[in-house]
Order: sequence, then C-alpha cells, then structure tokens
Amino acid sequence: MQGYTKNRGLFTDLYQLTMSQGYHALEMEEKEATFDLFFRNNPFNGGYAIACGIKTALEYLVNMKFTREDIEYLQEQDMFSDEFLSYLEGFSFTGTVKGIVDGTVIFPFSPILRITAPIIEAQLVETALLNIINYSTLIATKAARITEASRGGNVIEFGLRRAQGDAAYLGTYAALVGGCTGTSFVDGGRQWKVPIVGTHAHSWVQMFPSELEAFRAYAKVFPDKCVLLVDTYDTLESGVPNAITVARELKERGKKLVGIRIDSGDLAYLSVRAYKQLKDAGFGDASIVLSNNLNETVIDNLTRQITEGTGSTHEDENLREETIKHLLYGVGTKLITGGKQAALGGVYKLVAVDGKPKIKISENVIKTINPGLKTVHRVKGEDGYLIADVLAIKGERAPLPGDIIYHPIDPYKTYELDDGITTTALHEVLVDKGKNVAPCKDESWQDAQERCKRHLAMVHPTNRRLLNPHSYKVSLTAKLFDLKKRMIEEKQQG
Amino acid sequence: MQGYTKNRGLFTDLYQLTMSQGYHALEMEEKEATFDLFFRNNPFNGGYAIACGIKTALEYLVNMKFTREDIEYLQEQDMFSDEFLSYLEGFSFTGTVKGIVDGTVIFPFSPILRITAPIIEAQLVETALLNIINYSTLIATKAARITEASRGGNVIEFGLRRAQGDAAYLGTYAALVGGCTGTSFVDGGRQWKVPIVGTHAHSWVQMFPSELEAFRAYAKVFPDKCVLLVDTYDTLESGVPNAITVARELKERGKKLVGIRIDSGDLAYLSVRAYKQLKDAGFGDASIVLSNNLNETVIDNLTRQITEGTGSTHEDENLREETIKHLLYGVGTKLITGGKQAALGGVYKLVAVDGKPKIKISENVIKTINPGLKTVHRVKGEDGYLIADVLAIKGERAPLPGDIIYHPIDPYKTYELDDGITTTALHEVLVDKGKNVAPCKDESWQDAQERCKRHLAMVHPTNRRLLNPHSYKVSLTAKLFDLKKRMIEEKQQG
Repeated sequence: MQGYTKNRGLFTDLYQLTMSQGYHALEMEEKEATFDLFFRNNPFNGGYAIACGIKTALEYLVNMKFTREDIEYLQEQDMFSDEFLSYLEGFSFTGTVKGIVDGTVIFPFSPILRITAPIIEAQLVETALLNIINYSTLIATKAARITEASRGGNVIEFGLRRAQGDAAYLGTYAALVGGCTGTSFVDGGRQWKVPIVGTHAHSWVQMFPSELEAFRAYAKVFPDKCVLLVDTYDTLESGVPNAITVARELKERGKKLVGIRIDSGDLAYLSVRAYKQLKDAGFGDASIVLSNNLNETVIDNLTRQITEGTGSTHEDENLREETIKHLLYGVGTKLITGGKQAALGGVYKLVAVDGKPKIKISENVIKTINPGLKTVHRVKGEDGYLIADVLAIKGERAPLPGDIIYHPIDPYKTYELDDGITTTALHEVLVDKGKNVAPCKDESWQDAQERCKRHLAMVHPTNRRLLNPHSYKVSLTAKLFDLKKRMIEEKQQG
Repeated sequence: MQGYTKNRGLFTDLYQLTMSQGYHALEMEEKEATFDLFFRNNPFNGGYAIACGIKTALEYLVNMKFTREDIEYLQEQDMFSDEFLSYLEGFSFTGTVKGIVDGTVIFPFSPILRITAPIIEAQLVETALLNIINYSTLIATKAARITEASRGGNVIEFGLRRAQGDAAYLGTYAALVGGCTGTSFVDGGRQWKVPIVGTHAHSWVQMFPSELEAFRAYAKVFPDKCVLLVDTYDTLESGVPNAITVARELKERGKKLVGIRIDSGDLAYLSVRAYKQLKDAGFGDASIVLSNNLNETVIDNLTRQITEGTGSTHEDENLREETIKHLLYGVGTKLITGGKQAALGGVYKLVAVDGKPKIKISENVIKTINPGLKTVHRVKGEDGYLIADVLAIKGERAPLPGDIIYHPIDPYKTYELDDGITTTALHEVLVDKGKNVAPCKDESWQDAQERCKRHLAMVHPTNRRLLNPHSYKVSLTAKLFDLKKRMIEEKQQG
C-alpha cells in the first residue's frame, strides 16, 4: 500500500530546492507568494475536466517533511548550506490553500487550487502538487468520458499491467471518482476501499484438456462468482455453448452463472450473438463483460453499432437494445494511462507577491497569466446548466445580470450575463495556516463520484459531448481584464 | 524512496489470485508452467526497443511475499479458502527465469523473459512483471530515441510534474538506461544514484524587481552552478544580455557562468542567436539548455534546422554547427510518459505445461503465440550488424549459414542465412530456483546505459532510423515453424 502522507520532501524537482536556498540566503523567505494551479486545455479534446487528486495533494501538503536521511542526501550534493538544511529539517507547510475538491467539474484557466504561503513553502510543494493533480485529473476525466460512452453500463478499471509503474495507485482512485465501479488492482482496491473484480485468463483455459473442463473447474471453485472467458478458441462455436453447459450445471446445483467475458474479435457482433445464445438457453440475465483495448470512442461506436444494427444485422432491435443493458466494460491501458494523451498540462503560476499582482507575459499570448488574487464565480443559468466561470479581482462583487464578461485574451469577445443567472463562489478554504480543513478530508471515493455525477449533470450537453464540444466560457470581469491589460502594457514598455 | 522489493503480494490483478486458488483447490499447483514475456510492436513506430525494468522485476520476484495484513484483507473479501490463504502466507517464488537484461536491444516477438515455475507462482507474478517491464522498456526506448536525435547532446530527464504519479521512480532509471545523463527528480536521483540537475524557474525572476537583479541574486547564491533562465520577458533583448552582464560579474570574481536555459519561443532561431551573443561577449563555452515540450521529432528537426540554416539564416554555418555542440535538452512530459504512446503492449503467454508446448490461436493471426520451450539465437552478420533473432525449439542446434528461417506467420516469407554469420544465445539464466543469479543484479544504471549504447551500435542504420525503419527479422527455425503449424491445425480441427 502506498501513501502520499509522509517522507515526500524529496518528491520534487531540484530547482525548487535551489530556489528555496536562494530565497533563504537572501532573507526573502517571508515574502508571501500566491500561486494558481490550473490547466490551459481540456484533456482528450473534450469540453470539461473532472478535478481529482486534491484530497491526496492536501494530505501530502500538510504532512510534507524532510527526514534525517533526506537532509543527509542533500548534504552530500555539496550544494546546500547548513543553515538552509536546518531550515528544511524543521519544515512544515504553514500556508493557506483555496480551491475545489475531487469530482468537481473544471475548465481551462479556472484555477483548481490557489496556494498562498511564504515563497519557500509555496515553491517546495509545486512539483508534487502538479504531479498528483495532473495525473489524477487526467484519469478521472477519462473515466467520466468512458462512463458517459457506456450509457450507464458498468465500467471496470483493468489497467494495472499496462499502467506506468505505481501510477496505478492514484489512477485507481481517479477512475472510480470519474465513474468506474470497480478495479482489478487488488492493492489499489485495498488502499481506496474499492470493489475488486476479476475471474480468469486465457491461460486458465489452456491449462485444462478442453475449454469445457476449464469452465467446469472454474465453476466448481467459484460457484457464486462465475464469469467465464469465452474467446480462447472460438467465441460463438465453442466458448458460449460451453458456458451455457456450465450455466445449466450450476443451475442444477442451485447456483447461477454471473456472466461471460469476450476479449477479442468484433465485440459489437459477438456480444449480440452471445446474448441471443444465452437468452435462448434461458440465461438472459447473465452479464457480458467486454474488454480489449477499449476507450470512450470504441465504446460509443460499439453501442451505436448495436443500436443501429450495423453490429449484427441478424437480430431484432429489441434484442439488440437488451444486449446493451447487459454489457459491462473492462477498460485497461487507455483508461489508466490516458491513452494518446498521457499528461494533463497543469501549471503552477505566481500571480501575486505580498498580495500585489504579478504577471508573466509570453510570446504565446494564451500563456500570459491572469494576475493577482482572484475570486472565481461559477455562473448558472435559469435552466440549471453552467454558463461561465468568471474570474474577478478579490473583493469585487459577484457578477449580476447585465454584467459584461471578457474573454481572457481577446478584447473583442465579450458576453453579457442573462437575467435569471445565479452565482456561487467556486473555491472553498481547504488548508488554513497549514491545517487541513477541507470538508473532503475524510470523504470516500463514493462521495467524490457522486459529486462528479451531480456536476456533470449541470454541464450543458453542448459542452459535454465527447467530440468537438462547444467551449465553456472562463471569463474575466471588466476590472480584472483592465488590470491584466495595464500590467501587460507596463511590462512591454519596461 | 521506493522499492519493489517487499510487500508487493497484492500488486496484482484479482484474477491471478482467483485462478491460483482454483489451481490450489484442484491440486494442480505443482504443474510446471512456462510463460514468455514479449511485445508485438516496437514502441513509437520505431525499429527497436531497449529492454528495461528487468533488474527491478527480478528484485520484485525473489522478494515477493504476502504480509499478515495482505492475508487479512483477502480474508475479508469472502472469496478465498483458509487453505489457500495459508499457502499464500508461506509463498515464495521458486521458479526459474531466463532472459535478457536492462539495456539490451530487443525486437517484437523475441521474448524478454521466460518464466518457468509451478503454475500458481508463475501466475501470481504476471501482473507486476508486465507492469514494471512494459513501462520501463517504453521509457528506455523513448530516451534512446531522444538521445539519438540530440546527436550526442546531453539529454536530461525533466518530467516529474507531468509524470503519472509515482511512475517517475521507474521512469527516471529507464531514462538513464536509454541515454539520459541526469534528472531533475531529487528522490529518483537518490534512489538510482543518478546526477540531479536544475536551477531556477520563471517565478524566481518574477520575485525580483528586475530580471538583472534576479540573475545577480542567483549568481550570488550559486556562483559555481549558475544556469540562468533567459526567457521570462524577452530572450534576446533582455534575458541573454542580462545573463552576459552577470557572466562578466562572475568572471571578475573568478567564477564562470555555466549556461543559460531557453524554455519558449522558436528554439532553433533563439539558440543560434543566443549562442552568437554569448560568444561575441567572450562566453562561448556556456551551455544552452533547451526545454519546452521536446521529443525526438522536435529535437531531430531542431538540429536539422540549425544545420540547414532554416532555423536562423543570419549566422554563418560554422557558428550554427558550434551552437549544436553547446546544446543540452531538458525533456519532460513526452519522455517520462512516452507521449502519444503511453504504454508498451507487452504480454505474458503460456507456451508450455510440464515442458509440453501449448498454443493459443486467435482470430487475429499475429496474436497466435509461438509455442513451446524455445532458445533464442541472435544472428550477427559479417559487418557486425544484427541480422535476425531466430526462435528455435529448445535443444535444436544453433543456426548455420544456409539455414532457412521463417517468418512467424507467413509461410511464403523465408530468408536464407548468409555466410559469415555468427550466433549467440540471447538469453541467460537470471533466476535459478528462486535465487536471483542475474549478472546484472548489482549493476548500476551506467552499466546498463553502456550496454544500451553497445547494442544500439549493432543495430543496422536502416533498422535504427527514427522514422519508418526497416523491420528487423524475428524468425522461426523450420522445426519450430512446423510445430506451430501442426498445433494450429490440430486446434482448428479439434
């Protein structure tokens, strides 16, 4: 089992330590810095992200220490002063963190966390915060997309063998927050109190003289949890008929076949045909677990193919729709790694020092930060759907109908807030002077998954669709837009 | 710090445990199974892979135990018998492993490891072996490709903030095996005794009233390790001139500017111009560290652009070539995650039981395994380049000139071995009856990196090129080809 709670002092990039030694040597360590943690693009070309990893990140933050061995290792590097090392030995995070919690829907440029702390502290925790939140948010978002594509079908996390090493620990939790219902990863299941699932592999079938004998043997050992993998030799000619034989034998013993699994071939075709065989034999309540390189696109197409009859044209429409209701999806590699997008590009940017706004301009205008201490107002329309996240200068009143909000960069793109909107402050205090006060501190993955579902229901279908969604507005108030413009002009002149 | 050495019993998929309980209940646990661990496609559409993670995998294997807490957790699942749990409590791996070691060049279908053990043992270690070796091999291969693209330039691993959680531990080692020279990840550096590198971020510059003051402050604290990030405001107009000012001041104190870092903009253009500015000011020996979303394609193009003068046409050819010699590359996200390919699809397939060959046929013919106990002969040509890996039935003589070798699937694709070839048995014994006897057991990353370089030098340039390489032959002897054909026909008839 793994924890992010202790001994994570050196889970960082070296430059955080060199900069910190610099601030320490120059007696700047008491300067209070504020950093925004946010990302610039939704993962998977989607319309939203599901924030995740925050509970773990906060645990890390309030427990971050340097052990005696850490200090000795740093000493050996011949780079750090004794004064600085003794500072590190007594380190604890004393800052304040505001932000959102696991399962919250979030959008580009809308800060996930805001960290305010003495500059050294804020700097020393940057790398770990990004590491934890970038990966967890990526995977929770992927899981939400896959769950959406499955049309309410159960999605199970199956990826440990292809996970990037120990990433599977954080990944399992994130997959559950995003909507999965279980994992094959035993230690991950233990760590997060998540249901663990799994039955047998092709090698089990190969170990017996015949597939039927292999199935019988499995049913003998696990009469109450029998899911049979039917594609070792021939799914429809051998696997499903043998599974039906065993289902009959189980029935005679007062037991029930839980389901079958298909791990290769034309899944749309095979699942409809397999369901028909099972149903005709009186086992229509068995589940059909599908696996083999699934992701949201494959599952979305698969269910569509079955509905439209291009999966298997031989069966009637009702039977096809019934099939979909019996499908479960075991999703491995592309869930636990993110597939083609293996990282969320979250960043951690200095926005204020001692409360005074800071800016960093970039040749790439989209990378210019939104300066200063800000409040994020989430705006909801009369119909209950989210309209915009509005970034305001701290202390500004909440947005009202009729207010003009501004695109973060383009002065010609503005939007007038409608009548009937309601606003809420998105962030809450998570860490207060080094103390974890987050309401999510002791919550379970179920709580975060519930939040995720609640939030997703508020995302408008146009923002929520899997392919080419409409962009959600993350905007600035007039005052913040003016401040940003003024600061950019000053930097360009100076 | 992290280890794969202990308490990894539950780092597995549940179905390994259910199958094992099945074998135990059916008293099949003493059946001796042989599994091949291999992959089917080179990562990154390349021509080779660099095997990695084997040292760690062997450590895991010989130390794999179930703790008292593990057993209690399994008990709670209400799925496992007391007999089986007490078997697990006394578990240790007693099998034999043959294979290759970290840094070895390897190709699709040529086994990385062969595990022979009582079926329960071989099954229980599958998931962790795949997890460790899949990810490590992916990253070592990526690092080798990036190092190749850099034309001997130093490549530094910079990816912790975007790494998939704790993947960074295995990833750091793999990056070094593949050719990197250091890492920014402090705890990873400690674990693997790897040089750690890093200086300062944009936030450091923002913390001071001006860029020049920020640079002076950094030089004051780190006069011997001063690398300045020059792109916070304007690289050529502000950053490099300020770095030169500080270089002069360092020189007066008998110190030397180590280098500059550029993290945005047109890196081909900026690096040539920055080098010219540095050289003209008498600091032509400073390094230029480039970063910002690099991978092998970007680096390959970057160096080509500089050479061809499409990067910056204003400087002369000699200056451009000199620039390349001063470049270092900090590679983050796309190295530590693999970028668009985030997983190697390594598999673990049953090939024999009690020495008797087993096969699993598949609708997808490429997925049909090569059955039985095999020896892998690596064949080298007179010119010193590798020609083929030849899979033979165990006990067959080594291939000789004139032998016909067979494509693993297509009977019409054969190849006659030339005169002048030499062959070596690729695999060595790594674990003998549960004891780690691998010669690589105590080797360092440097040893594995040396091996990687030595092996890559034997890969023919046509197989080695980054884009659309020629396929390397992994072939079967006539006898193995016949065995496979016969077994497929038997399965199809039966």
